[in-house]
Amino acid sequence: MTTARTADAAATVPAAPRRTGEADEPIGAGEPDGTGAAGAVRAVAENARRAARRLALSTGGERATALRLIADRLSAHTGGVLAANAEDLAAARAAGRDAAVLDRLALDRARLDALAATVRSLADEPDPVGGVDGGGVMPNGLEVRRVRVPLGVVGMIYEGRPNVTVDAAALCLKSANAVLLRGSSVARRTNAALVAVIRSALADTSLPVDAVCLVPGVTHASVRALMALRGLVDVLVPRGGHDLIRATVRDSAVPVIETGVGNCHVYVDEHADLDKALAVLLDAKTRRPSVCNAAESLLVHAAVADAFLPRALTALAAHGVLVHGDARVGSYDPAVVPATEEDWGREYLAPELSAAVVGSLDEAVEHIRRYGTGHTEAIISDSQSAVRRFVAVMDTAVVAVNASTRFADGGQIGLGTELGISTQKLHARGPMGLAALTTTTHVLVGDGHVRDGAAVPEA
Amino acid sequence: MTTARTADAAATVPAAPRRTGEADEPIGAGEPDGTGAAGAVRAVAENARRAARRLALSTGGERATALRLIADRLSAHTGGVLAANAEDLAAARAAGRDAAVLDRLALDRARLDALAATVRSLADEPDPVGGVDGGGVMPNGLEVRRVRVPLGVVGMIYEGRPNVTVDAAALCLKSANAVLLRGSSVARRTNAALVAVIRSALADTSLPVDAVCLVPGVTHASVRALMALRGLVDVLVPRGGHDLIRATVRDSAVPVIETGVGNCHVYVDEHADLDKALAVLLDAKTRRPSVCNAAESLLVHAAVADAFLPRALTALAAHGVLVHGDARVGSYDPAVVPATEEDWGREYLAPELSAAVVGSLDEAVEHIRRYGTGHTEAIISDSQSAVRRFVAVMDTAVVAVNASTRFADGGQIGLGTELGISTQKLHARGPMGLAALTTTTHVLVGDGHVRDGAAVPEA
Repeated sequence: MTTARTADAAATVPAAPRRTGEADEPIGAGEPDGTGAAGAVRAVAENARRAARRLALSTGGERATALRLIADRLSAHTGGVLAANAEDLAAARAAGRDAAVLDRLALDRARLDALAATVRSLADEPDPVGGVDGGGVMPNGLEVRRVRVPLGVVGMIYEGRPNVTVDAAALCLKSANAVLLRGSSVARRTNAALVAVIRSALADTSLPVDAVCLVPGVTHASVRALMALRGLVDVLVPRGGHDLIRATVRDSAVPVIETGVGNCHVYVDEHADLDKALAVLLDAKTRRPSVCNAAESLLVHAAVADAFLPRALTALAAHGVLVHGDARVGSYDPAVVPATEEDWGREYLAPELSAAVVGSLDEAVEHIRRYGTGHTEAIISDSQSAVRRFVAVMDTAVVAVNASTRFADGGQIGLGTELGISTQKLHARGPMGLAALTTTTHVLVGDGHVRDGAAVPEA
Repeated sequence: MTTARTADAAATVPAAPRRTGEADEPIGAGEPDGTGAAGAVRAVAENARRAARRLALSTGGERATALRLIADRLSAHTGGVLAANAEDLAAARAAGRDAAVLDRLALDRARLDALAATVRSLADEPDPVGGVDGGGVMPNGLEVRRVRVPLGVVGMIYEGRPNVTVDAAALCLKSANAVLLRGSSVARRTNAALVAVIRSALADTSLPVDAVCLVPGVTHASVRALMALRGLVDVLVPRGGHDLIRATVRDSAVPVIETGVGNCHVYVDEHADLDKALAVLLDAKTRRPSVCNAAESLLVHAAVADAFLPRALTALAAHGVLVHGDARVGSYDPAVVPATEEDWGREYLAPELSAAVVGSLDEAVEHIRRYGTGHTEAIISDSQSAVRRFVAVMDTAVVAVNASTRFADGGQIGLGTELGISTQKLHARGPMGLAALTTTTHVLVGDGHVRDGAAVPEA
């Protein structure tokens, strides 16, 4: 699961300091595909809906078998996929797309094998549907079970990473959902080839081929059509850059699971162990600056600024990190550039960091409330009361205490394969496992139970 | 918790057969309150946001104490509330509002005592926040806790029942959320008086008074302003008629918890115990026709039509139920009126029922897929395989097996005080307890834990 919005995104650091995310394929770009897009998308969605009904009756064993067959086919039938990918790459080069786009787009045998391995490991995970997560027997003998069931039809809207095509198909199959895949025009041939491999594998299983469908068209019209299918599509999951996610949340009539922006802070408290603080800061900022759980801002309590900041700034410089600091931070190192108001809100996704000195924990909290994005906030402190207060007041998906922000990741906290990191509060918040692709139904079993004891008149 | 969208709605049966829900105050009605509405609503929402931050630090004990004080004040200070209510009633009468509106609006000492009793019993329920609902220690020693926390600021938009004002305030306080109350203009004086009592009680507690705020203005402008406050308001919960809910879902930039329409079916299988089938049908249709978990449609397997329908039609007639039937149903009783296509989709909320004979369980399932609303569907059958199939294919919030649809109710299935019944799939589906007003945060506790073992350079 490797998009820039998920925690394990590829380590590639964009060359440009501006945050670009994966916005290589903004909504609205692509070739015009004329009229009739809405009808074509609806027809495919109706196929997916029928497939979803059959999937709801499938067993976890059938789905695991299908996933393994898909993995085998992805490893075995690389020729067609790589040829299609070469065509996409050539077209992207001809169109003058930049190196980061080309890198995200490119597949080779090793990347395909890695994708197949992900699918295979997903097959081995516990079945996310069918579990009973609540219930009991009521005083009147009515049996109540709350059962996890698939959402139904999931629409994935994403950008130039063809690996999302395989990831999304596998996650949805695992959770017994049908999936509508709407990737980027830049990867259109690659996605079509990957979906063809997956569907040919499905054709050899007990599952419906339309469990995995490519949305026809790569223009904005097809995205608009997808976003309008409330009732036919149960949820949309945008995966990619900030603009894609924002546009989907704003415009979709279909409910959206939002994976969000991470302007993650590391707050070094006056009671911090400064060695641990430095280790966490460097891990959070320098190891994979392009991912959403990387640190983007450092706040240091004034009482430890003299002891911590010179060490930290030297270490950050050694890792090539450009620091945008306030005046006090700048006083320790001439390489620090003055932070602008805009810097405090920036998700650099690059080797850059904003940094400020704060007078108190509460001042740090106020700063984070103002500029944070509700993703992941870290405190480094040995004070039990400071930690307790920070945890209590942080309104965020993840709070890390004396630990790196980079642990905000489903795989790192025991949730298994990760769907992404949600910064919304409803449905799922924080690292999302497969459970986020399920809902519940309540099964009530009686033996002629009535609520109000209605007398039955004689016939 | 007594609105027509929740299961325990008042037993009042609308006189008119057409479904009117609680649409006594459609969005857009009310007096013009001029410009500045958006700014005034935002100012109140900002007060509520500040209150929410303090509430997040409150203990369950403090909140229970506050609820008990509110209950005491509601019982003790009835004069002002009843005077305000009398003014609202007089104004509504003068405006020619119908009897159903007046009945929903009217308060008396007994109704206020019942409201106070609800608030008092809520105080005694378990605290919905602070619970740890997942976590463990990772192999690297990182401690992970998933903790239930309040959503923050909840906006309630509702119609002419002043009891919702108290219910919503109590539910939100119990779950440590601040609440923005936007009731109907028809109840404006009553709501203002109730909120004044609640806030005066809060002023004598450790909790912030702005935990409970009335949204200024009773025109569409104030609703529009509320729906635009994404980021400041965490969720909107519309409670009331279909039109209100649909408009909120369609227009709100703030996420919505949707409580929905219940076109609930009772399917009498060929293997049904017909005595149980009749008891369930009568309970589901006749006891409280005005509530969303009442049955609206009967499907009878052809093999038992001759044995069941004459008895059922006689009993329904004895309860004053008008049946809209297909030709076969009509053949048993001349009082049956022919069902139109529209009837199959109707939520009568009245002593009316659509009824059809189906050739098979699968035909019943197809009918329900086409016309159902995903609320509650019942099967009456002694066939284990028929029940298993029905449960597996029903894509609905609640499936009742040999039990009345009216058990689709939080209180009936052990969820405690009910917020409503959700027909959406994300966040909460089916009867919602207080947990639906919470989200989670992930607390990760390490001791200088880093993910990638970054070496710390010497300073």
